[in-house]
Amino acid sequence: MSIGEFDLIQRWFQRPSRRSPLGVGDDCALLQPAPGMQLAVSTDMLVEGRHFLPTVAPEWLGHKALAVNLSDLAACGASPLAFTLALSMPRVDEAFLDGFARGLFGLADAHGIEVVGGDTTAGPLNICIAVFGEVPVGQALLRSGAKPGDGLWVSGTLGDARLALEVFRGSVALDAEAFAAVRARMEQPTPRVALGIALRGVATSAIDISDGLLGDLRHVLRRSNVGATIDADALPISPVLAAQPLALRRECALAGGDDYELLFTAPPSRAAAVRAAAAGAGCAATCIGRIEAAPGARLVDGDGRAITTAFSSFDHFTT
Amino acid sequence: MSIGEFDLIQRWFQRPSRRSPLGVGDDCALLQPAPGMQLAVSTDMLVEGRHFLPTVAPEWLGHKALAVNLSDLAACGASPLAFTLALSMPRVDEAFLDGFARGLFGLADAHGIEVVGGDTTAGPLNICIAVFGEVPVGQALLRSGAKPGDGLWVSGTLGDARLALEVFRGSVALDAEAFAAVRARMEQPTPRVALGIALRGVATSAIDISDGLLGDLRHVLRRSNVGATIDADALPISPVLAAQPLALRRECALAGGDDYELLFTAPPSRAAAVRAAAAGAGCAATCIGRIEAAPGARLVDGDGRAITTAFSSFDHFTT
Repeated sequence: MSIGEFDLIQRWFQRPSRRSPLGVGDDCALLQPAPGMQLAVSTDMLVEGRHFLPTVAPEWLGHKALAVNLSDLAACGASPLAFTLALSMPRVDEAFLDGFARGLFGLADAHGIEVVGGDTTAGPLNICIAVFGEVPVGQALLRSGAKPGDGLWVSGTLGDARLALEVFRGSVALDAEAFAAVRARMEQPTPRVALGIALRGVATSAIDISDGLLGDLRHVLRRSNVGATIDADALPISPVLAAQPLALRRECALAGGDDYELLFTAPPSRAAAVRAAAAGAGCAATCIGRIEAAPGARLVDGDGRAITTAFSSFDHFTT
Repeated sequence: MSIGEFDLIQRWFQRPSRRSPLGVGDDCALLQPAPGMQLAVSTDMLVEGRHFLPTVAPEWLGHKALAVNLSDLAACGASPLAFTLALSMPRVDEAFLDGFARGLFGLADAHGIEVVGGDTTAGPLNICIAVFGEVPVGQALLRSGAKPGDGLWVSGTLGDARLALEVFRGSVALDAEAFAAVRARMEQPTPRVALGIALRGVATSAIDISDGLLGDLRHVLRRSNVGATIDADALPISPVLAAQPLALRRECALAGGDDYELLFTAPPSRAAAVRAAAAGAGCAATCIGRIEAAPGARLVDGDGRAITTAFSSFDHFTT
């Protein structure tokens, strides 16, 4: 079957426009942040085998492609507005496109945002989304604002996506129910958009965890010119991960990747405000350590003893 | 050699920020159109074999990846501000990245714009750029504004990129000098940014020609709910293409693709303003036909006789 690009866009990706003065189909989309707002922009590209497995349902791929981009807006405290979609695929597979569009627009509708432009082309499967949000001028959450004395916080739970990947790799076995739970965390991540918005004026810095807690923490510490001590026993993990051996638990939670939780800092005086923000956003927030002046990251257990085990991204991190 | 994503971005793609309140390296970039301006957004993805040949110099690939996106801004009459870059590539090839970045930033510098975000990943070579510009509210050139009686205009010359492709395909032979000229049109397209800006308030509609004149004209006619007559003998072509047989000349100019010229409409009363805009922008503008109320596109020769030859994208166009 041959479908031209124009028809393909019309059939699967064109929808009535609400926020943009123009819908899909002109050379550009036009966007205008509200008065006093800045536009926040981010882009993420997803490649098969790297960001998703060939076994993923098209619906969850559509969901995830947008979710990882929304997660970047969340990390800046921006309210999502719109996105563009560039899609390269080997052929026009109707079942794939039906599912992909369903997952993509399901999440878009949940956040009240719309597609404002795009590009489709033949080629190896590749999904590139650019997402647009708005944030009041000067209120964006940056990586550079962490201060010594701040608490180090994380939303939700960590490590389930990595645990699911280990099951796919055959290195871990789980029963069906446990696997379904962690697989959903890998394939259907929830961007913490409401939490990011609620943390405006509360958090001093924020980042979303896509490459593993320690790897992403590194970016905050470098940008903020500070260090941190992390209590490995305080890391929030799911009951499924909690049932795994200690070394695997720590590897998944500290260096797992694909968590799409927010890692953020806030002064101790704002701890109640952090908890209120999380409660309002319907997710957990856990204090897992503190920011210090001395550079580098120090990992301790619940008794304050140093942990010297190397983790896959922790090696990078300390060298 | 192994280079992490963070280092790769720092080495090749991080530059001092001028326009964005934040440089590359946070979760989002922050952008703010000037008062009274709207943000124009577009995205284009380039895939090897589809949008460029494996033989292309990395420098021209970097140039072209940005040029085709700037061409979309030009078609809206927007002034370029910034772009994001998502890049998937099989391995970290330093020579490739050196050349790619040189071509990319060469064109970016020529337009005074900067990269504000991006993503790099392992995978088949794929380049996805989203470009941001600004245009005064209500002045964007749209596809939908063509009116019966308007002249139909095109910038520069058409068909050289397609002629170069035919040489690569082995179906046409050119001497070295002629080949160099048309190859440059294919590999180093010039986005008509200055012309697009100069046509604000002059043109009634505009589009950039990426898929061939007739294919892209179709979008304008559909959106504007009009038809057109095109004088095939009025099409502006280069001396190299002019030396080719008639059928090839017409095929290249009417259905060639990869021209990145502007196709636009303007009332006859604004013909002098069009010529002044083109002169100011340093490119030619040629009137190639007129917009009519009757739907569809009619192709005639210089004597007004109907041309019934089918062209690759013309077939699509009329069915």
